[in-house]
Amino acid sequence: MQTVLPISPAQLSRGASTPLSAQLAQRYAERIQQRLLLAGARLPSVREAARRHGVSASTVVGAYDLLQAQGLVQALPQRGFFVRAQALPGSAQRRAAPGAPPVPPMAAPVNATALIRSMFQVQGGKPAPAMGTLPEDWLDAALLQRALRAVVSRKGQAQAWLRYGDPAGDMTLRQALSRRLADLGVAAAPTQIVTTVGATQALDLVARTLLKPGDAVLVDEPGWAVEFARLALLGLRVLPVPRGVDGPDLAVMETLLKAHRPRLFVTVSVLHNPTGSCITPAVAHRLLRLAEEHDVWIAEDDTYAWLAPTHSTRLAQLDGLQRTISISGFSKVLAPQWRVGFLAAAPALVERIINTKLLGTLTSPALLEQAVAHCLDQGSLRRHAERLTERLAVARTRTVGLAQQAGCHFVTPPAGLFGWVDVGSDTERLAQLLLDEGWLTAPGALFHAAARPTTLMRVNFASTQDPRFWKRVAQARRG
Amino acid sequence: MQTVLPISPAQLSRGASTPLSAQLAQRYAERIQQRLLLAGARLPSVREAARRHGVSASTVVGAYDLLQAQGLVQALPQRGFFVRAQALPGSAQRRAAPGAPPVPPMAAPVNATALIRSMFQVQGGKPAPAMGTLPEDWLDAALLQRALRAVVSRKGQAQAWLRYGDPAGDMTLRQALSRRLADLGVAAAPTQIVTTVGATQALDLVARTLLKPGDAVLVDEPGWAVEFARLALLGLRVLPVPRGVDGPDLAVMETLLKAHRPRLFVTVSVLHNPTGSCITPAVAHRLLRLAEEHDVWIAEDDTYAWLAPTHSTRLAQLDGLQRTISISGFSKVLAPQWRVGFLAAAPALVERIINTKLLGTLTSPALLEQAVAHCLDQGSLRRHAERLTERLAVARTRTVGLAQQAGCHFVTPPAGLFGWVDVGSDTERLAQLLLDEGWLTAPGALFHAAARPTTLMRVNFASTQDPRFWKRVAQARRG
Repeated sequence: MQTVLPISPAQLSRGASTPLSAQLAQRYAERIQQRLLLAGARLPSVREAARRHGVSASTVVGAYDLLQAQGLVQALPQRGFFVRAQALPGSAQRRAAPGAPPVPPMAAPVNATALIRSMFQVQGGKPAPAMGTLPEDWLDAALLQRALRAVVSRKGQAQAWLRYGDPAGDMTLRQALSRRLADLGVAAAPTQIVTTVGATQALDLVARTLLKPGDAVLVDEPGWAVEFARLALLGLRVLPVPRGVDGPDLAVMETLLKAHRPRLFVTVSVLHNPTGSCITPAVAHRLLRLAEEHDVWIAEDDTYAWLAPTHSTRLAQLDGLQRTISISGFSKVLAPQWRVGFLAAAPALVERIINTKLLGTLTSPALLEQAVAHCLDQGSLRRHAERLTERLAVARTRTVGLAQQAGCHFVTPPAGLFGWVDVGSDTERLAQLLLDEGWLTAPGALFHAAARPTTLMRVNFASTQDPRFWKRVAQARRG
Repeated sequence: MQTVLPISPAQLSRGASTPLSAQLAQRYAERIQQRLLLAGARLPSVREAARRHGVSASTVVGAYDLLQAQGLVQALPQRGFFVRAQALPGSAQRRAAPGAPPVPPMAAPVNATALIRSMFQVQGGKPAPAMGTLPEDWLDAALLQRALRAVVSRKGQAQAWLRYGDPAGDMTLRQALSRRLADLGVAAAPTQIVTTVGATQALDLVARTLLKPGDAVLVDEPGWAVEFARLALLGLRVLPVPRGVDGPDLAVMETLLKAHRPRLFVTVSVLHNPTGSCITPAVAHRLLRLAEEHDVWIAEDDTYAWLAPTHSTRLAQLDGLQRTISISGFSKVLAPQWRVGFLAAAPALVERIINTKLLGTLTSPALLEQAVAHCLDQGSLRRHAERLTERLAVARTRTVGLAQQAGCHFVTPPAGLFGWVDVGSDTERLAQLLLDEGWLTAPGALFHAAARPTTLMRVNFASTQDPRFWKRVAQARRG
């Protein structure tokens, strides 16, 4: 996820034409609008805010009064100031017009979409620890431009834009993906592959095809909160399976299978987000037997495939796509904006998923799919991914060293893009402190289906190499 | 919808190395695989098939035996041969692998997706009456190529592909759309607009944001079956509101509002599919009052906007996007393959819809959105649409003349892309007869929430200008 500094510069400006209290109010207002302070969150006490921002208590009181007047926060007697539940960006001007029906309450937990939206608020700035992608300058715009030029200049290309195209997706990409999956040990004919608008749509299509509202679904915990939010929006009961160093906790999984009869398990086998762990062959084997016994489908999210060795163990490889649906995309290593993803599944299921895709978007843009196929066929994506993996290994070593110097330790052995690190103090509180200094972090609570206080944090190895960040973390844990 | 001849040539080939019975079986097998003969459909009686294909009864019996052996049809004693419910394309090879969990039954009516998929089966052939789009050769590939080249060569373009982009959509397109909507009398700031993967995703996002499973939703009837199927897939109760020449039947609508308290009405105000009718200002005014009284949102599908006068009455114009969400796209007049659509709504609702979009596809490809913006800004799309509209008027006059000569009459005054025509005999049966001769038609049953026999049919004025088609219809209604 591309992300950046979503807040104003750290220092309030004395002697500016705007009073300090208004400047402070403005800073909190921005944070509320950008969903970095969520509905229900408590603002720091007057004393703490005064200390943190180096202003007088009366300046803070003035700022909080302004926020209250703007309808962004409310004061609860004896408890403090809280972000209002109905606060919407831009306040009155952006509210529903009078007479319009009330917007129904959000079906999904707000935190996930809040984080993800905050990550989109400002673009092109400097890397932040919370990022979900490699930094922009690690990717290769020239490679993309060459691929797109090659495809656009093909005979009949523009003529093809006048048709909807194949609902299963562009055939050149499906053929290239079939070869790529074979390299990973997954046998999938092109007719077993469906292209999607990023891996995100693939995950959405699988859940919409296989489940109906009220059904139970298993997920990894910790796991990616956006996945939890998507499943909740579909009216599903989300049941977390604890994720260990060697894969999902099968004892818990079995208990949940017996008690709730879920139809689907959504899991990341390779370079799991946020822990970076990979499933072992033994756990994979036992997991598949359990899945067979309880008749459950598995959506295997292989988003980080290009950053892992090709010989990593995958459920899709072991069971030959019988009950596993393999899902991946090209946002992490190639072109986030192109929104090209795919899934591979059993033939009968593929037919059903194509129907769901037709109802959701009809088809997906073949032009961008062909450009990705070009990158696959020319070998340029493979070479690019190899360079990225080497660079990431160097960054990981550096980040791990800095984190350990700062007294933090990694819960799982560092691997891939993300580190799952214990900083020794509540990371939700730490996130607000660090935000004052311009660091957007991903506190551990975001990776749990039901958010709870934790000293864990996810860091992106590529974008957390600044020693100043880790010095600040060390200070925070001491104070 | 681009579509074509999805079946083998009409004549079976005597003296070929393949026996006639095998050729006939192959023809029916293809039709079943392409979902032109649906599960549960009865094959013609042996006598009728023999007459229709000019072969002996024993040849037909041989063909039906083959189909039965392939698992595609089953014989029911005293009743005839029926397409099997579980028949999947490619039979055994494409079935779920043994041990895989059973594919759950389809949540949506199969007919809509069956039609739509049959329309995608073969591409690039000659126009057919069932088409949902203008013929490919009416569109302008060169215009698209110029737009894409202009956008790709922009400074910073490839660099932008390395970021996810704005979840609300590309700002240049949202600005261009804001101006376009102003031309239609709809005031919408760029911040009130969200781009989507075609109008289809916009309709999907609105339903997913505003409704929860079990909720009731109103739709036009007749209406577009894919819309019914999408709403059914979301677990909604689909309630049809009869569509008259001047708009929805408000008396029925009021009864349904009182009895079922639906939250949303999905309707086409301008050039309604399939009738071609437009809502009158008086009905629009009363409909909005009713919607306000019963607190219901309205998704106004404006897919055919470019083929209608700009002064057409729109609900979005009358209520200023308070409770109306305006939805449209560029598949009908510009570039079906690019999948660019959008919606415009009240600010508070827009925020919620962006969250739903994030969960479904994260963002949408900005490159193609910018290319569409280029076509809007340069005026090339407007001029292109004007030429299309003139050409369509000529085609409409010609098609209407041919239809009337064939003894058919139009239920609503012919306008726009589609005619809603009464052919005087059951159109489901007619569709199967015409398919034997290579004409793919859209029988009226497809446009009803609960399919029922009807003598109505939707024709595409642009692709139904062949006198031979109408001669065949005239013959069929006589015989």
